[in-house]
Amino acid sequence: MGKKLLLDCDPGIDDAMAIGLAHGLPELELVGLTTVGGNVELEHTTENALRLVDFYGMDVPVARGAGRPLVRAPKTAADVHGASGLGGVALPEARSKLVDAHAVDFIIDTLAAAPGEISLAAVGPLTNIALALHKEPRIAEWAAEFVIMGGSYGRGNVTPAAEFNVHADPEAAAVAFGAPWRTVMIGLDLTHQARANAPVRTRFAELGRLDAELLTPCLDFYGSHADYAGEGPAIHDACAVAYVARPDLIRTVPARVDVEVHGRFTAGMTVTDFRAEPNAAVATELDVPAFWDLVTDAYRRIELA
Amino acid sequence: MGKKLLLDCDPGIDDAMAIGLAHGLPELELVGLTTVGGNVELEHTTENALRLVDFYGMDVPVARGAGRPLVRAPKTAADVHGASGLGGVALPEARSKLVDAHAVDFIIDTLAAAPGEISLAAVGPLTNIALALHKEPRIAEWAAEFVIMGGSYGRGNVTPAAEFNVHADPEAAAVAFGAPWRTVMIGLDLTHQARANAPVRTRFAELGRLDAELLTPCLDFYGSHADYAGEGPAIHDACAVAYVARPDLIRTVPARVDVEVHGRFTAGMTVTDFRAEPNAAVATELDVPAFWDLVTDAYRRIELA
Amino acid sequence: MGKKLLLDCDPGIDDAMAIGLAHGLPELELVGLTTVGGNVELEHTTENALRLVDFYGMDVPVARGAGRPLVRAPKTAADVHGASGLGGVALPEARSKLVDAHAVDFIIDTLAAAPGEISLAAVGPLTNIALALHKEPRIAEWAAEFVIMGGSYGRGNVTPAAEFNVHADPEAAAVAFGAPWRTVMIGLDLTHQARANAPVRTRFAELGRLDAELLTPCLDFYGSHADYAGEGPAIHDACAVAYVARPDLIRTVPARVDVEVHGRFTAGMTVTDFRAEPNAAVATELDVPAFWDLVTDAYRRIELA
Amino acid sequence: MGKKLLLDCDPGIDDAMAIGLAHGLPELELVGLTTVGGNVELEHTTENALRLVDFYGMDVPVARGAGRPLVRAPKTAADVHGASGLGGVALPEARSKLVDAHAVDFIIDTLAAAPGEISLAAVGPLTNIALALHKEPRIAEWAAEFVIMGGSYGRGNVTPAAEFNVHADPEAAAVAFGAPWRTVMIGLDLTHQARANAPVRTRFAELGRLDAELLTPCLDFYGSHADYAGEGPAIHDACAVAYVARPDLIRTVPARVDVEVHGRFTAGMTVTDFRAEPNAAVATELDVPAFWDLVTDAYRRIELA
Repeated sequence: MGKKLLLDCDPGIDDAMAIGLAHGLPELELVGLTTVGGNVELEHTTENALRLVDFYGMDVPVARGAGRPLVRAPKTAADVHGASGLGGVALPEARSKLVDAHAVDFIIDTLAAAPGEISLAAVGPLTNIALALHKEPRIAEWAAEFVIMGGSYGRGNVTPAAEFNVHADPEAAAVAFGAPWRTVMIGLDLTHQARANAPVRTRFAELGRLDAELLTPCLDFYGSHADYAGEGPAIHDACAVAYVARPDLIRTVPARVDVEVHGRFTAGMTVTDFRAEPNAAVATELDVPAFWDLVTDAYRRIELA
Repeated sequence: MGKKLLLDCDPGIDDAMAIGLAHGLPELELVGLTTVGGNVELEHTTENALRLVDFYGMDVPVARGAGRPLVRAPKTAADVHGASGLGGVALPEARSKLVDAHAVDFIIDTLAAAPGEISLAAVGPLTNIALALHKEPRIAEWAAEFVIMGGSYGRGNVTPAAEFNVHADPEAAAVAFGAPWRTVMIGLDLTHQARANAPVRTRFAELGRLDAELLTPCLDFYGSHADYAGEGPAIHDACAVAYVARPDLIRTVPARVDVEVHGRFTAGMTVTDFRAEPNAAVATELDVPAFWDLVTDAYRRIELA
Repeated sequence: MGKKLLLDCDPGIDDAMAIGLAHGLPELELVGLTTVGGNVELEHTTENALRLVDFYGMDVPVARGAGRPLVRAPKTAADVHGASGLGGVALPEARSKLVDAHAVDFIIDTLAAAPGEISLAAVGPLTNIALALHKEPRIAEWAAEFVIMGGSYGRGNVTPAAEFNVHADPEAAAVAFGAPWRTVMIGLDLTHQARANAPVRTRFAELGRLDAELLTPCLDFYGSHADYAGEGPAIHDACAVAYVARPDLIRTVPARVDVEVHGRFTAGMTVTDFRAEPNAAVATELDVPAFWDLVTDAYRRIELA
Repeated sequence: MGKKLLLDCDPGIDDAMAIGLAHGLPELELVGLTTVGGNVELEHTTENALRLVDFYGMDVPVARGAGRPLVRAPKTAADVHGASGLGGVALPEARSKLVDAHAVDFIIDTLAAAPGEISLAAVGPLTNIALALHKEPRIAEWAAEFVIMGGSYGRGNVTPAAEFNVHADPEAAAVAFGAPWRTVMIGLDLTHQARANAPVRTRFAELGRLDAELLTPCLDFYGSHADYAGEGPAIHDACAVAYVARPDLIRTVPARVDVEVHGRFTAGMTVTDFRAEPNAAVATELDVPAFWDLVTDAYRRIELA
């Protein structure tokens, strides 16, 4: 029996790969998926989550969450993920159904049912997390750890200062980083080491339908963007899942992370101070070969529906 | 059968008077009270709501809500309302119990059950309202109207620019004013016309136990603050309840209200533009004699437990 | 011999009236005019200052100052003052010449030459004042007093929160209010009491050429704006000059004024706290009849060139 | 005859080394030093500039400038540079005298006298530069180029987001980066490559009195700070001077630099966008061996007084 993971996501191409990773890893037991508006609109991220559950042959509850950031107007990254969120992939319409609970309640109830046992990972904007913390602050005690794919202690991607997930809802991120749980920030500093470059894709090519129907069309679309050109696209979200399964693959350093919510050019920046009282463990270094071994092995284990 | 009112509050002295007013008015049917941290901590506002339900002999569900503002650190007004929130009043410990639902869900479910029939009034910080809008945006359609006691188009009270309820959670107020419902702002401009001065208190003196056990100790405590000296304390929250019952007593003007969330000296200001595309009706003028008649008559109707 | 006045201005219709007032008042000796970009561009405010000197038959040095705000992009009020700054007035091209000194140096040198003797009044954006304070902080000791036409402790005019002069350069205003001189804020609260209404204009009609060639065309243009309709246009800048000559006509109250430089909706607001440690005297009440007597008498004394 | 350089500085240890470099380089003719408050108070930076002129045996005019940032309260880095600004160095009291002009006027007049011929370099907070631009915007045409030691496109030093010189006066930096001159940003990204490590210091040891009386005590003090430990202290300011003399030693990339003036955690950050319309050339790579050759050779040429 693996470590329990509850994954809040906005699929999204790298979310799709992260969900597959969570499903294929024997180290993990995925106890639920919750969706949030982010890479694309909530309607699409939710439908995508259900389609991926079908595609991967998973038996995991999916709960729909918040469609808009806590305070700001919504912004998507449809240019990076395609209008529907899964780039060039066309999965069949979902047969799986949503559970009859809002993501916020699903998060609270799931964590409440097994205090200290479940890792909560968020790989989209942190709106659901912030709302759940507001409704039930004790989730900060109940979650075994809280792993964010988001932020950066160096430069951003959506702006020079900010990474997409935090930029999309800076106020929610401020709430999430402010909660008294064990927070792990898997930021761009780490995820930019996880490049699906040519050798990686060669290994994926042996995965049969998973590669042909999901990985290749995803990565072709995703990789066509200028900022990823050359080294291959960074598979951000999978890093957060990998961390939960195998923390030994990722070096972290304690730091104080404050989210800028007031700047004109810097809104959504995760200002990271390595000399101040820490509130997070910040990922700095990925064991790249071991990471891709982990990912490829997990994908190999998946029996598609 | 009167107009249905769902009241989100943070009792608080003027909340106590507003709850009594809602109870005593034949024009209104109070369908629920939800509590929020504000004038004092959530623990106290919730206990106070329950004690007031007991004291007034009401049969109304009470649901506990959010204890902290959406993004900022909590600040109370314990100097104005006393450490426990009800100034010099000592009501017996509550016998009534909370309903088994978070205020956010209680608001959503109550409004969902009777679309278009219930006025939602908020007389504390707008945290519960913002959270409810995030969880179920359709409440903006379901509520018959949304009446805020908060803000000002002139000067503030807690700072020169901001009124307490909006200042306590500016981001939540921004969410509330941004929702597409019919919003009515009962700000300081209006409530400062509702002064419990000597003639008013003389009328209250005839109310027997209600006055002796609640109104007098409340108003003595509340009125002892410098900024209310002279003209008598402003009974802010009761104005919002009065508006729901008798909108003809309060003149409103359409205006665009934006909540400042970024200023150093102006956070929580309700910047009100009477020349821009309106998103709210802003109260400007109170029929003062009719208001006090309404209040006194309502109080007279209450049969204390 | 009157009180010495150095006037920093951006003519501008009400500036034109203020300059005439300063010239005609026996209580004042106008020792210089400095110009700043504001109501219209610096080029126009400077040319207007020179033309007015010619028109009024004044023998007063004029120095050109800053054309752009300290940090922000320039914004004019050409809609209120006309593209050239003097509405419908067409004065002949200036014969007077600028002095060979930048306004900043003219201010510094003039005040340095007579410490404690000269009142400095600013009736435009505060850019020159801030630059002069930066170059020579001792002007704060040398000026007998510093009188600002600008700001408001109530509502603004260019935005709901901010008055034009402070809004045009909030950072400069913050510097000016932060300097350790005796500061007097003649804000909208005061100047909106100085309305050139029908009775006032009837008195002006007896002034002959001054009225026919300057006051009537100015006020017709100025008064045609919606926000001044009804009560007549407010002659803002003249109030600051009147204060220097006759402080007994204007009631002031000590207050702490902070200029908001960070707000999204509130930039340029003069946040005025009457309960904090004061840094300014804030004008609250104008002796209206005495003010118009003062103005009319001064204008009557002017012998046009 | 070398390239003409006008240097605005706040000595400061690395300023002292930069001034010596400017003096010793045959490629440069130093036409003036202007001082600003920064590393330490203006009084000290100015006295230090004069002492260094004496020590190096220079015949260069020194003009005193602004003591306070444009809008914010002053902050020094006395912990890094010592209370007097030159760490452990004790130079004799200055015999040289200031020129009788404010730095702002000295900058304007010097550039006006030789349009297109003089490089302006600023290695302290940008207050003087901003004030000069306000008083005479044409300096942006007259300067051959404007070289800033300041900012960073990666992380900061005084905060995680901001470098000291820009953080000390963000509004002034915004003005400087906004002016239409050829701007070169020599930020921490570049200067952190210029480490006075053990091999460098071994070479300095052959410089006799210059090393014994200035370099060694400076670097011992400067290098004792934790953030420079290990690799040797970064000689920031000297890089800007080296760039003017030998631009071929420093690779630059065009970029858009915006200075954050509103953030809570990010004020003074130079937000650098390599994909937007550029307003600056941003230094990325130093030819480290050639740089130290240049510095050592220049120092060797100095004949101390």
